Amino acid sequence: MSQPLNIAVVGLGRMGVRHVKTLLYRVPHAKVVAVCSIMDHELKWANENEEYKTFGITVYKSYDEMLNHPGLQAVWVSTSTDVHASQSLAAIAKNLHVLCEKPLSTDMAEAQSVVDAAKQKPHLKVMAGFSRRFDASYRDAATKILDNKAIGEPFMVRSNTCDLRDETGFFVRYAARNGGIFVDCAIHDIDLSLWYLGNPLPKACWAAGTLQHHPELKELNDVDNAVGVVEFWGGKIAYFYCSRTQAHGHDVCTEITGKTGKVMVNVIPKANNVVIADKLGMRHEVQPEYWQRFEDAFALEANEFTDSVINDKPVPLPMEGGLMVMHIGRALQHALLSGEVVKFNEKGERL
Amino acid sequence: MSQPLNIAVVGLGRMGVRHVKTLLYRVPHAKVVAVCSIMDHELKWANENEEYKTFGITVYKSYDEMLNHPGLQAVWVSTSTDVHASQSLAAIAKNLHVLCEKPLSTDMAEAQSVVDAAKQKPHLKVMAGFSRRFDASYRDAATKILDNKAIGEPFMVRSNTCDLRDETGFFVRYAARNGGIFVDCAIHDIDLSLWYLGNPLPKACWAAGTLQHHPELKELNDVDNAVGVVEFWGGKIAYFYCSRTQAHGHDVCTEITGKTGKVMVNVIPKANNVVIADKLGMRHEVQPEYWQRFEDAFALEANEFTDSVINDKPVPLPMEGGLMVMHIGRALQHALLSGEVVKFNEKGERL
Amino acid sequence: MSQPLNIAVVGLGRMGVRHVKTLLYRVPHAKVVAVCSIMDHELKWANENEEYKTFGITVYKSYDEMLNHPGLQAVWVSTSTDVHASQSLAAIAKNLHVLCEKPLSTDMAEAQSVVDAAKQKPHLKVMAGFSRRFDASYRDAATKILDNKAIGEPFMVRSNTCDLRDETGFFVRYAARNGGIFVDCAIHDIDLSLWYLGNPLPKACWAAGTLQHHPELKELNDVDNAVGVVEFWGGKIAYFYCSRTQAHGHDVCTEITGKTGKVMVNVIPKANNVVIADKLGMRHEVQPEYWQRFEDAFALEANEFTDSVINDKPVPLPMEGGLMVMHIGRALQHALLSGEVVKFNEKGERL
Amino acid sequence: MSQPLNIAVVGLGRMGVRHVKTLLYRVPHAKVVAVCSIMDHELKWANENEEYKTFGITVYKSYDEMLNHPGLQAVWVSTSTDVHASQSLAAIAKNLHVLCEKPLSTDMAEAQSVVDAAKQKPHLKVMAGFSRRFDASYRDAATKILDNKAIGEPFMVRSNTCDLRDETGFFVRYAARNGGIFVDCAIHDIDLSLWYLGNPLPKACWAAGTLQHHPELKELNDVDNAVGVVEFWGGKIAYFYCSRTQAHGHDVCTEITGKTGKVMVNVIPKANNVVIADKLGMRHEVQPEYWQRFEDAFALEANEFTDSVINDKPVPLPMEGGLMVMHIGRALQHALLSGEVVKFNEKGERL
Repeated sequence: MSQPLNIAVVGLGRMGVRHVKTLLYRVPHAKVVAVCSIMDHELKWANENEEYKTFGITVYKSYDEMLNHPGLQAVWVSTSTDVHASQSLAAIAKNLHVLCEKPLSTDMAEAQSVVDAAKQKPHLKVMAGFSRRFDASYRDAATKILDNKAIGEPFMVRSNTCDLRDETGFFVRYAARNGGIFVDCAIHDIDLSLWYLGNPLPKACWAAGTLQHHPELKELNDVDNAVGVVEFWGGKIAYFYCSRTQAHGHDVCTEITGKTGKVMVNVIPKANNVVIADKLGMRHEVQPEYWQRFEDAFALEANEFTDSVINDKPVPLPMEGGLMVMHIGRALQHALLSGEVVKFNEKGERL
Repeated sequence: MSQPLNIAVVGLGRMGVRHVKTLLYRVPHAKVVAVCSIMDHELKWANENEEYKTFGITVYKSYDEMLNHPGLQAVWVSTSTDVHASQSLAAIAKNLHVLCEKPLSTDMAEAQSVVDAAKQKPHLKVMAGFSRRFDASYRDAATKILDNKAIGEPFMVRSNTCDLRDETGFFVRYAARNGGIFVDCAIHDIDLSLWYLGNPLPKACWAAGTLQHHPELKELNDVDNAVGVVEFWGGKIAYFYCSRTQAHGHDVCTEITGKTGKVMVNVIPKANNVVIADKLGMRHEVQPEYWQRFEDAFALEANEFTDSVINDKPVPLPMEGGLMVMHIGRALQHALLSGEVVKFNEKGERL
Repeated sequence: MSQPLNIAVVGLGRMGVRHVKTLLYRVPHAKVVAVCSIMDHELKWANENEEYKTFGITVYKSYDEMLNHPGLQAVWVSTSTDVHASQSLAAIAKNLHVLCEKPLSTDMAEAQSVVDAAKQKPHLKVMAGFSRRFDASYRDAATKILDNKAIGEPFMVRSNTCDLRDETGFFVRYAARNGGIFVDCAIHDIDLSLWYLGNPLPKACWAAGTLQHHPELKELNDVDNAVGVVEFWGGKIAYFYCSRTQAHGHDVCTEITGKTGKVMVNVIPKANNVVIADKLGMRHEVQPEYWQRFEDAFALEANEFTDSVINDKPVPLPMEGGLMVMHIGRALQHALLSGEVVKFNEKGERL
Repeated sequence: MSQPLNIAVVGLGRMGVRHVKTLLYRVPHAKVVAVCSIMDHELKWANENEEYKTFGITVYKSYDEMLNHPGLQAVWVSTSTDVHASQSLAAIAKNLHVLCEKPLSTDMAEAQSVVDAAKQKPHLKVMAGFSRRFDASYRDAATKILDNKAIGEPFMVRSNTCDLRDETGFFVRYAARNGGIFVDCAIHDIDLSLWYLGNPLPKACWAAGTLQHHPELKELNDVDNAVGVVEFWGGKIAYFYCSRTQAHGHDVCTEITGKTGKVMVNVIPKANNVVIADKLGMRHEVQPEYWQRFEDAFALEANEFTDSVINDKPVPLPMEGGLMVMHIGRALQHALLSGEVVKFNEKGERL
């Protein structure tokens, strides 16, 4: 067997910890050699973690030190959005492969700088972490639409990212650094729209939002529920609903309408195959959060990234793909805050 | 417009009252001229009913007197099972058309006597009331299976009749006269099986039951939940689950499996098109009873019966069809009580 | 029984003919005494219709003559949108009750004139025909949301009106007079949004559309698929998708999100309770058009209108309710064509 | 990290090969050291398999030799049913832990001998492979029913194992050694029934079957579609439908009815979250076989077995549990072939 990929995870928040687990248990060709966090409670937790010890994982407080870990080949950047770009750049500078969680940055120029840096080192695998691209259902939809032409020319996408209401305060604390609801939350929906619609260029967009449960977001120029519409050149349209406040669970669905049919992904979300019938009628439960929905997708993503490095294949999702996604996400956020339509020229550049 | 059909309804229980409503409001070619009941509280209710007065309906205490109502042409027998046959015979004797609720009788000889009497008066329309035969979904299933051969040769039927638990005691009071769970409750399922399987003859059957909520049924030689299997000559099988004790509503479904596919009718029952999502997940309500599920079917049945009389067409469901249904229902009930397999010869006669 | 309501239907297109049927067979307290059309083929058809003869229906070519039909009490206006207002006004002038199909007019002033005329004759029942308000599922949703507070304060509505693609050319011929996709098609969705959100006032709206199957609509300043968003004062939002080109059937759904839950109406449309399983998987059919979906609603609407006249009750849907609906529909259509946001002041007046 | 468990897999048919994959990629604490097959084509395939080479797996033709593989600790028996027992016994004799695919044997005495041998070596982990017990949905159902009492006392189980029709001939070739449809196919359904109903003892059973696609099964005393009913002492009932001939996929569902509700597992099987809407209506695909449905369950099973060995915990499913399951399966098969009811005394022993 070829040598496993020596990989480190930076960021030990909710998702970073899960990524470590995925790498340990579901990615046979990867080996977690180091983790890093600047948060004291995360460091304490990691240093006391028996599993990390038995797997021989070194815990770093300094990201720069971690980058010098002997034999390190790749970094999974799973920190908050505001440091995604700088940490990716630092890893690239050290000739390390990078899998960076979306979005690259909330600043377009900074995001571009990562893409540029990656282009200058074509031997490095640098990949944007759009996990839904690795989900079996979204892939099946892509096969049906793009390969099998099952719905004719697709022209309309509806896509929702609706999260269970977070009563813990975690989400609001995190919100200050996430770039706003359309950058943090709709970014997957925008990415899916571009995928299924064949990468059209934006023509105009508008958005409206409301604050229902987290009035403190107002100071952060954000909302907790928002609707946005993107019109593309060529008669294509995508529209999104993002919510932080669902009562029933993680409700993420996408519908793609084409000239001869429609593909629906997860329009009725279900936690598992169980239905209970009692005095209230018939009901099923819904996944509480995206982890339960996309756990397998994260595993596949990690395996495909590992495979691209070990076997020197192209990464499944090149970094630059994320630039247009963010470009649109930021325009929607601007429309939301200004109340005005954001327009783009025929090259997709904002006017 | 041709003259409407003068019809009377005997039996003013829950269903009789509904049949009157159906005839008044949804059967434009029928005119309810009389109703009859021997129950004091039903009579009192009918005599005080303003609607009946405005529609000019005469209320009778005596069935024989009602049969002599001037101009009466047809009778809808909606009493308890034990008098279905005698009332049908009396109506036939008076040269009246008859729509008789299922089952004709719990006694085979008595049921046969009604069929014989009807045959001797071929100008009369005498029809068994198997309401599911008039339901849009069951008819669509029949079209798909029998006309379109959508599933190839059908060979297996699963059919359930599961009622909402009746906490009022109504059901148990009625149970003494209904012939047992397989005669009263599974009879529709047996009828549907014969329809979809092409009227096969029974070869053997067995059943098992249990008492969960109505122990008082034991004295009546009955159970409140039962499963039965009928094997037909020619390699066809039907199996049934009947229940009186469902918590969630009226749950009646049928699945027909054929060589190249399966048709499912109402496997997930829904009261309407509404789903509610909240902390419990996603749920829909279920119809509380068969009226909500089959109201349209009863209206169609009444219209088709009326049409068969006015325009002298064959009745959609001849009386004799009900004989084999009851024959099988009684055999299942016997198997349930004896614990033994009931066997039939190649003519479908019990051995 | 009180005397039935003498009613006439003007317009014998697809819907007018159905309304006559509904009145004949499902509205026991109404009597169709006359119909009217100016279309030769409709007149010919009506004059030769045996059923109309047996029910004694007089066929008129002149609407004015029909209004003078002896004993006429009410008119159901089921013509094309461009004459709804003038025909309603003429009926009101003759002291006739009016049930007018939506929308009253594509011109706000004209629509207002009908409302004004109706107000001056408070003894007349003048009603806007928003049929979905009479649908069992939408009513159940209203009960859950408005009466039972099942989802807390509602703040977001998604509502779709997506029609099966019409290959016959009927739709395009009709389109010239219907006011555009947001006036003709989204008007029900707007009405439902106002209902469930508690009649909020519009603050801003935007829309985008595309032509996929009917390029000839371009000359009519219309599209065949469109998305629109309405932001209301008070933090409420509604968004709509209208389509004339669905492959699978009539797909009309509404989702209402509130602070503690979500109600979904018809998110998975089904023609009936039948599912077929074969080599393609499991599938169900979808209603081909709104008639199959809303036939019962039209019957209830006709019965409630009849009841309001006969028993002098308020109409279930007063005419003026339709004004705000059309106001918003026209603003969305304007946004669609101009590409600009339409804004409203705090009284809901367009700026 | 503690040392991984050295495990070997015997049998390299469709499932054996999958078990090796599961152990390699999804069971971090297990290490596949050897595989074994007596089939030439399987051996050839294994000897040429690059992956097996890189993971250092030794391929054996002799099971006895494999049992002597240095350091071997456990064996996963994944051969045909007729050698399950003898191979398990041989492994136990060598002091190896055993995970044996269901059923232990088609012969009760032989099955008992394995249980006895295991009891004499309590330090060995010997486990029956009832994979559904490790499925997330079945476990959730168990939690709801047994722990949360969500449906009150359960008394009725319906359970189906319906396989996609196998056009390749594989199934029929295998059938000669599998003990018949109720032993090979319903055994999971019987096991689930015992689990959810609290291990009741059988009182009587009956079955009926038919041959629809594989007439050659007649010589093997088997059928390709069968229905069976088991009545238990204490008023509990389970009924099963097994099929080898479904057109639409692997359709495996279970419904458990209790005094106050019903739990349904996988009543509408779905391959993934994708629905396609087109001229045929709305449809979803169904898993082609149990691997797609239960892949995660097999991984969990392998992990829990590994954990029980490494950490010396009780196995999640003791061997003896399978004895009653097979006892009932064989009785159903007897009823199927004889046409007679099989009865049991109050200890569950066949009369």
